[in-house]
Amino acid sequence: MSVLMSRRDLEFLLYEWLDVEQLTLRERYTDHSRDTFDAALELAASIATEHFAPHNKLADANEPTFDGERVHLIPEVAKALDVYWGSGLMTATMDEAVGGGQLPHVVASALMSWFQAANVGTSGYPFLTMANANLLLAHGSPEQVETWVRPMLEGRYFGTMCLSEPGAGSSLADVATRAEPQPDGTYRLFGNKMWISGGEHDLSDNIVHLVLARVSGAPEGVKGLSLFIVPKVLADGTRNDVTLAGLNHKMGYRGTVNTLLNFGEKSGAVGDLVGEEGRGLACMFHMMNEARIGVGLGAVALGYTGYLKSLQYAKERVQGRPAGSADPVAIVEHADVKRMLLAQKSYVEGALALLLFCSRLVDEEKTADTPEARDAAHLLLDVLTPIAKSWPSQWCLAANDLAIQVHGGYGYTRDYDVEQHYRDNRLNPIHEGTHGIQGQDLLGRKVIMQGGAGLMALVAAIEQTLARADDHEHAVALRATVERIVEVTQAIWAPADPALGLANASLYLEAVGHAVIAWMWLEQVLAAEGKVGDFYDGKRAASSYFFRYELPRTGPQLDLLAALDRTTLDTWAEWL
Amino acid sequence: MSVLMSRRDLEFLLYEWLDVEQLTLRERYTDHSRDTFDAALELAASIATEHFAPHNKLADANEPTFDGERVHLIPEVAKALDVYWGSGLMTATMDEAVGGGQLPHVVASALMSWFQAANVGTSGYPFLTMANANLLLAHGSPEQVETWVRPMLEGRYFGTMCLSEPGAGSSLADVATRAEPQPDGTYRLFGNKMWISGGEHDLSDNIVHLVLARVSGAPEGVKGLSLFIVPKVLADGTRNDVTLAGLNHKMGYRGTVNTLLNFGEKSGAVGDLVGEEGRGLACMFHMMNEARIGVGLGAVALGYTGYLKSLQYAKERVQGRPAGSADPVAIVEHADVKRMLLAQKSYVEGALALLLFCSRLVDEEKTADTPEARDAAHLLLDVLTPIAKSWPSQWCLAANDLAIQVHGGYGYTRDYDVEQHYRDNRLNPIHEGTHGIQGQDLLGRKVIMQGGAGLMALVAAIEQTLARADDHEHAVALRATVERIVEVTQAIWAPADPALGLANASLYLEAVGHAVIAWMWLEQVLAAEGKVGDFYDGKRAASSYFFRYELPRTGPQLDLLAALDRTTLDTWAEWL
Repeated sequence: MSVLMSRRDLEFLLYEWLDVEQLTLRERYTDHSRDTFDAALELAASIATEHFAPHNKLADANEPTFDGERVHLIPEVAKALDVYWGSGLMTATMDEAVGGGQLPHVVASALMSWFQAANVGTSGYPFLTMANANLLLAHGSPEQVETWVRPMLEGRYFGTMCLSEPGAGSSLADVATRAEPQPDGTYRLFGNKMWISGGEHDLSDNIVHLVLARVSGAPEGVKGLSLFIVPKVLADGTRNDVTLAGLNHKMGYRGTVNTLLNFGEKSGAVGDLVGEEGRGLACMFHMMNEARIGVGLGAVALGYTGYLKSLQYAKERVQGRPAGSADPVAIVEHADVKRMLLAQKSYVEGALALLLFCSRLVDEEKTADTPEARDAAHLLLDVLTPIAKSWPSQWCLAANDLAIQVHGGYGYTRDYDVEQHYRDNRLNPIHEGTHGIQGQDLLGRKVIMQGGAGLMALVAAIEQTLARADDHEHAVALRATVERIVEVTQAIWAPADPALGLANASLYLEAVGHAVIAWMWLEQVLAAEGKVGDFYDGKRAASSYFFRYELPRTGPQLDLLAALDRTTLDTWAEWL
Repeated sequence: MSVLMSRRDLEFLLYEWLDVEQLTLRERYTDHSRDTFDAALELAASIATEHFAPHNKLADANEPTFDGERVHLIPEVAKALDVYWGSGLMTATMDEAVGGGQLPHVVASALMSWFQAANVGTSGYPFLTMANANLLLAHGSPEQVETWVRPMLEGRYFGTMCLSEPGAGSSLADVATRAEPQPDGTYRLFGNKMWISGGEHDLSDNIVHLVLARVSGAPEGVKGLSLFIVPKVLADGTRNDVTLAGLNHKMGYRGTVNTLLNFGEKSGAVGDLVGEEGRGLACMFHMMNEARIGVGLGAVALGYTGYLKSLQYAKERVQGRPAGSADPVAIVEHADVKRMLLAQKSYVEGALALLLFCSRLVDEEKTADTPEARDAAHLLLDVLTPIAKSWPSQWCLAANDLAIQVHGGYGYTRDYDVEQHYRDNRLNPIHEGTHGIQGQDLLGRKVIMQGGAGLMALVAAIEQTLARADDHEHAVALRATVERIVEVTQAIWAPADPALGLANASLYLEAVGHAVIAWMWLEQVLAAEGKVGDFYDGKRAASSYFFRYELPRTGPQLDLLAALDRTTLDTWAEWL
């Protein structure tokens, strides 16, 4: 079990750092206690280990197939999902009113990480369904909740999100699927959707597609988009006009079937409007922000399990003699292997801290005592979301790359797990908004929103930590980096030229991300302060690694940003 | 054809930069001319395109299988190799005395890159055979050359190199295969070899294994190793005692069968000593240095073709509106996509320049007018070899990663080529010596050999370029970086503590590699100076990208090295 996630680290983050027990004083969580949290962690770890992990490789080697009529998955998927639904974990965070467990999100994220570490492909089905259900609980009518959400919570229906089209991936403004209003209040949808995970299978009685489309006559761009429930099977039991056009064959993440769906090849797919016309993207963002945090968490989980597996390998594999050693040693004793393990540890534990911190903000957003505190949590979460999505997708993928390297040739074979983790994780920088999109979101929207309140919220949060860490050797470096980020952000926007300002948004995303993870490490060493033992020494060592090897990377990036570098703008396509 | 390699770039490097035509003044190459070089380039491009590229995906999807008796490959491999052998390219660089074409190595490397870009898996068979034949031509007896090399040159026999064992990969000192001398002058070998590419197949009448083993009674460590020819089929037509123990199932590079071989399960595998006892590693290094350059070149070729494919995609794919654009544009017009393309271009064209420069040094080593010039070429090549192996393996792999990212979701599917290039290329940082091994070779051996002559040779070569570039905007940065590298190298070795000195050898390797590639870019812009057109503007743009975005990465790395950072040494395994 220890090779999936670290229970010890999760407990440290939840109890010793984020003080999650304190949440049980709030009304929403009064039925909870450390005991119920621990029991949930235990349950998730055991189901993930016993029912999800064992078929991870099998699902990779036997990806879903389509025989023209049905999509076939290996039977282990349905069996694992039956256990999952039976456990009640699906509704863990939801309201008691819909049968939920009202578990804090921060604890629920810890649970989810076990499943993603065990089998990210199979986890995709319930986690997509959960996001779909949460969207409808927030934006759907009581009737829609009754008709579609209830069966999803029982595991009878599964859900998807249908945004992308063959010609509109990163650019949702170009969504071309159209919806024609009908006299009975429903709509008929016509269009093609691409990259739809879980778009077709026999795992459930029905599939609830949430589809972005443009009502005839609606304006161009994102303002003309509306959101529709388009079920695979209509209420009367007949098949809706939704056709599987094909499967995508991926590098990894193969366990989650990924589809092209055609809506309205015949009479039009029957759709039910969610909320109001023209509010589609606003509704979808609810799901997308949750999905982005989920992607970041999945990237962490894959990075984390890869780290633990390469650590285990490095402790068992004997080879080579470092200077001063007469006999071969376990490779963990080689400085360069330690470097690769420390790098992984600093990436995956730093990123896990960030994701749990963000999940804690979701709880604050929902249950903090004052409206001001709830708003503040919302603002900070908004700024952190692009980083929580992209940083783990880049650096926990880098961790998987190092996990392969630690294994040497063995890591390149399919006999070990790490090459699959790498291939699975490589999806994360792409879906739910690429790095490029996240960079534009952070620099072009989040840090400048409300007159710069976004950036100031982040800086204030970091400064609170620095105030508690004044005598810590690494506080100086973090303070200097944060001050430089503020200066550079002002320099970027001084000319008020969006093309120039955003030219290097990806570098900005990466640099701010490194500063945020350094902050997470400073938080962790403060939580470990004065505590004795290998676990705490490990936290201190990984933090030192991050401050010495990683944070300095931001120097040249911030220099380039400060210089408003025009290299990419001044390069013509013909020169490439 | 243009999507495999760029003929225009190869011509620029060979003729406008490296002045390869001048080589035809030397006796060895007098039969050659630009016409013969061009004809060879044309031939390689056409065979690679027509016979190697078409089954690249097929070989990936249908990896070799072993039915307990025979190894099965898809038939396209044998057909392509027949064409290859028929072309005479196998012996292109070899002496006329053995039927070779005496083509300069620098031109031959350009030819090889086409095959590796087209199909690195199928290319593995002839290129391993070529390395094997070259080793025997250098170290074998006339009889060994007649018996084993001649049939290899005719494509009747294939070759392997058998170094690694299950317990000895990076650490050849621990090779345990033993060789027992026989009264007839032959040896009997007993042991298990691992990671043997091309170790078993039906592509040839025989397979010539070159095996590192320890003669009974020989000393421990690398000094006790000897090299043996161990054929699959003995001269009398009977099978030698070499057994296929299994195949490795890899993440990529699947077209090249990779095997575990058992030597001497019964009476011992009959082996014929190459050179003298105890000189095995010295002989093998001849092949390994060639193999390391070959690995670097393969990494470049995969990076290069991925770049060209993502560039083509970016020019065709229309999506999104950059600031100021009313209609969707080809994605190549987005600054962030240009950044990803410029990065790839700077990595792959910079690395290709380095590999051709190194190949040119092989020609100098062999044919320069004076012994001093030949020694100087040898020394510089020796220093550059770990960089030529590792830098492309790291950064042209990063190029493949960016090629996937430019393709978005499509790049993650097996419908496009780039995910396979990435998977294939991921082997290169591992085989023929990992980054860790190359870093130790560079910092622990190459730069300090002959009292620092290695480093000084590299610095002198870069200074020759700087002397011609005094007024160039980027010369200042390169000069400063080189001076800092010299200082840092001295600081590292001042305490004469190998464990401390080598603790961050991988960072040193990366920093010096970046400086060397910057040098290659300065060389290229000098060669392009005063020349007009998109091609030359592209060289200038990619060079600017490299100097602005990449070279500054070395700053924090060199700072850490100068500080003799002890983080990895002071971290205990128990803390991880």
